[in-house]
Amino acid sequence: MEKEKKFMREAIKEAKFALLEGCSPFGSVLVKDGKVEFRAHNTTTKDNDPTAHAETSVIRKACKKLKSKTLKGYTLYTTAEPCAMCMTASVFAEIDKIVYGVPVIDFLRINKERSLRMTPQAWKRIKIKGGFLKRECSELYSGF
Amino acid sequence: MEKEKKFMREAIKEAKFALLEGCSPFGSVLVKDGKVEFRAHNTTTKDNDPTAHAETSVIRKACKKLKSKTLKGYTLYTTAEPCAMCMTASVFAEIDKIVYGVPVIDFLRINKERSLRMTPQAWKRIKIKGGFLKRECSELYSGF
Repeated sequence: MEKEKKFMREAIKEAKFALLEGCSPFGSVLVKDGKVEFRAHNTTTKDNDPTAHAETSVIRKACKKLKSKTLKGYTLYTTAEPCAMCMTASVFAEIDKIVYGVPVIDFLRINKERSLRMTPQAWKRIKIKGGFLKRECSELYSGF
Repeated sequence: MEKEKKFMREAIKEAKFALLEGCSPFGSVLVKDGKVEFRAHNTTTKDNDPTAHAETSVIRKACKKLKSKTLKGYTLYTTAEPCAMCMTASVFAEIDKIVYGVPVIDFLRINKERSLRMTPQAWKRIKIKGGFLKRECSELYSGF
């Protein structure tokens, strides 16, 4: 419990850096063998990158540095429960464990305006149609 | 229908570039006003980046070039139904529409080995614990 708090405080520090840069206060650190090895914060506004969430950024940074597509043995500490994008990135990166601060349900309650994009309404706005050139596309995946 | 096929063929071209680079054959293009404006393919292996899926990469590339966090008016053409990471990135980027080739359900059938990471088993492997320093983390989100 003390260990979790110690590393969560490091994630909070990162979140505060994001605020200083005019970005949303989300911070993440990647821990291995009791040591913070990588840190990142949200830079979506600063970098004009809707995918530059703290979690996705720290995963990209660590993988690049380690020259590895996976991060086995790492725990991700992050100030809020990861969105579906960051959660999926964590699964792809084969991270061992995620420890988060605020659950999404509380986040939505605290900051209604900023959390609109996480609601079903945001998802319903996008039109999705599938099955175009399905045969040609399928051929891509049968042989590789 | 002809328009969809034309742009899907461009996405397929990108997927083939990925194969040439030793990466998985996924390709995406972003179309606006009847024109392909941005293109990308999977580079996860080449770049050691588990988030470098074709869809997420083309979104990042377009936002960077346009200096915008959103891509209103764009349609994403992509060779396979986007994973949860890319689908969420598309929602954040406020893309108008997604047109895909192979549905995930077919992809799983075609390529069992490669699709293991998209199964519930892959998700179950990751441990998730929440609510650490919840008060301190919540304070980050109440004022910004």
